[in-house]
Amino acid sequence: MERETTRIEAFSDGVFAIALTLLILEIKVPDLKDFSTNEKLLTALIGLWPSYFAFLLSFTAVLIMWINHHGFFKYLRKIDSAFLFANGFLLLMVTFINFPTAILAKYIDTPAFNIASAFYCGSMVLISIAYNLLWFSAAFKRKLVKDEITDVVIVKIRNAYWFGFFVYLTAFAISFILPLAGLLICILLWIFWTFLDYQTKK
Amino acid sequence: MERETTRIEAFSDGVFAIALTLLILEIKVPDLKDFSTNEKLLTALIGLWPSYFAFLLSFTAVLIMWINHHGFFKYLRKIDSAFLFANGFLLLMVTFINFPTAILAKYIDTPAFNIASAFYCGSMVLISIAYNLLWFSAAFKRKLVKDEITDVVIVKIRNAYWFGFFVYLTAFAISFILPLAGLLICILLWIFWTFLDYQTKK
Amino acid sequence: MERETTRIEAFSDGVFAIALTLLILEIKVPDLKDFSTNEKLLTALIGLWPSYFAFLLSFTAVLIMWINHHGFFKYLRKIDSAFLFANGFLLLMVTFINFPTAILAKYIDTPAFNIASAFYCGSMVLISIAYNLLWFSAAFKRKLVKDEITDVVIVKIRNAYWFGFFVYLTAFAISFILPLAGLLICILLWIFWTFLDYQTKK
Amino acid sequence: MERETTRIEAFSDGVFAIALTLLILEIKVPDLKDFSTNEKLLTALIGLWPSYFAFLLSFTAVLIMWINHHGFFKYLRKIDSAFLFANGFLLLMVTFINFPTAILAKYIDTPAFNIASAFYCGSMVLISIAYNLLWFSAAFKRKLVKDEITDVVIVKIRNAYWFGFFVYLTAFAISFILPLAGLLICILLWIFWTFLDYQTKK
Repeated sequence: MERETTRIEAFSDGVFAIALTLLILEIKVPDLKDFSTNEKLLTALIGLWPSYFAFLLSFTAVLIMWINHHGFFKYLRKIDSAFLFANGFLLLMVTFINFPTAILAKYIDTPAFNIASAFYCGSMVLISIAYNLLWFSAAFKRKLVKDEITDVVIVKIRNAYWFGFFVYLTAFAISFILPLAGLLICILLWIFWTFLDYQTKK
Repeated sequence: MERETTRIEAFSDGVFAIALTLLILEIKVPDLKDFSTNEKLLTALIGLWPSYFAFLLSFTAVLIMWINHHGFFKYLRKIDSAFLFANGFLLLMVTFINFPTAILAKYIDTPAFNIASAFYCGSMVLISIAYNLLWFSAAFKRKLVKDEITDVVIVKIRNAYWFGFFVYLTAFAISFILPLAGLLICILLWIFWTFLDYQTKK
Repeated sequence: MERETTRIEAFSDGVFAIALTLLILEIKVPDLKDFSTNEKLLTALIGLWPSYFAFLLSFTAVLIMWINHHGFFKYLRKIDSAFLFANGFLLLMVTFINFPTAILAKYIDTPAFNIASAFYCGSMVLISIAYNLLWFSAAFKRKLVKDEITDVVIVKIRNAYWFGFFVYLTAFAISFILPLAGLLICILLWIFWTFLDYQTKK
Repeated sequence: MERETTRIEAFSDGVFAIALTLLILEIKVPDLKDFSTNEKLLTALIGLWPSYFAFLLSFTAVLIMWINHHGFFKYLRKIDSAFLFANGFLLLMVTFINFPTAILAKYIDTPAFNIASAFYCGSMVLISIAYNLLWFSAAFKRKLVKDEITDVVIVKIRNAYWFGFFVYLTAFAISFILPLAGLLICILLWIFWTFLDYQTKK
């Protein structure tokens, strides 16, 4: 059974690594037409800041998700079919994140920023649901978790995932009116998680 | 020999994971030209439903195939060259599935839906043939299967693969006339497999 | 040192798997413009045969290369820097093969077939050189090979790689005049290798 | 803790392998329009030398980075959160290198070569910073390094990374005026490292 878990982990790692790396394909090489000069290329490269920003944003997000996913498996003593499907849904969403990232990069400096941001935050809500499902499938009635994990820890993790869900939902709602605020809420959540993780491990 | 099997498995897993993740590249960012508004972007994002649907469809299909492939190796005590080629053909088809998916996404809401659906279901027929070949190369005269696998199990699995083949063939034939019905048959087959798998493991 | 070898193998496997799967991206979805009908889509899909052919060709080629590369490592007791660079050159060429494949797919049914075929076969010559270098770096003065590998085996493998090199070189030269013949020579070589491999393992 | 390190290594290897292989997607198939002849295709293929050059350049760079990264982990007895983030930043930059490579390929033979080269060398500066951060997070107060690694070795490696940083910075500054010289400095640095590595291992 141990080997089983390892293979699911390795497969998920593969999908995370590929989804992460494919993000770069969304930064498109600017076409200066016939007449390219240093000034024009410099302007074009600087003008691509929305693409850099979106790349940085999603790379960080997926990386944090991977670290989280990675930590997740340490709690498990085995996996079952329901867990496999929850994990499959999570991988689907991790792969999908490439698309809202591209949308964000293209429309962040246009009047359509609200929808672009809402689409991005909305995808994060779905990812959050995937994590909640994953935890539910693993920890409900302690189905798959190791014996040494106390109930206190289980409740704590569950609450952390619920917290994430509500924060993302807020970000989603707000971004229809204040798109930048929506994105900032997501970023703050990631910083908070990272800091928490850092504190715990120290 | 054990290590050999592991490496083939890892390589196949890699191809599955990449084929799965590349599916996202087929969802193209809509181009709103000069004048982008929230309304137009929202309309464009909703208008992309064929792409989301095709992505969801093929992601699920490839994931189920992977779980199946994954279970497959548990029956084997070794592998040989014929098995390697059957597996190679399967990986070819798993990789190929990206293309009929893109065709489906593009033509699902056009008068060319029949051919798009037939092309998709037809690719599933080929994948089904690959699985049949894989099982034949492994189980014919019990060549590669472990001793603890009874003949009853072997026949049962063989029949399951044959069943899949005929269902896909039916879906293929039907989709020329009723394209949506063809796709639905494929989806029902996946749900059936999933349920079966779930029942077995419980 | 054993672990070192394993990691190089795993990394190479990753590059092989990705290069293999990326081939699908070269099959482009046909654009039927505003007016798409079943007849037009069917015609378009059939008209893509050069892409299917090139995909099939290169997928098979890379898969056989992988099986070969995979067998290669069984002879080694350790690796060194020179081997690493020869392996790096091989991975470069395996990755590169995507491009001549795309060229072949695009120009196989045009008057530019000669150059497209020569470019493809020429890339195979380079791959062959990479394999020769790899074997030289491993087997010269028995530097990296295991003790149980006899000198007879070493010479036999060396000759097989040299043979491949000359066959590819012939295919390259011929394809300037008879492009299809050049490709056929490559394919015959792969079938021959496969058959040889099959015989050996039986 | 050992297993932890192995998984980070495997994940990083995956990102390196994918980033490496994706480079090929930047070589675009030339479009000869309706009238393709052997002469025109040959001219077009030769005219793509900037793409081949950029591909070769970055493939080599990423491969050397991988070998280096690979060697890095041998010094570590464990990893912590700070190391994980430094490693994440490195992976971000390794993934990003695809983009400056594409820029270089497109603008190397235009008047915008200066900016293209500066952008490429500038990215190398960032990669160098990532390696310095990685080493700092590992070796500062000997936090993560194995006990058998002497202080002399630590200082030596630190200096080597600092040296790389200043060379890249020089290349970056020079490429605004002499773009080719900037690239040559980068290449010389890689040859130097390779040679050094070769000497050490012999």
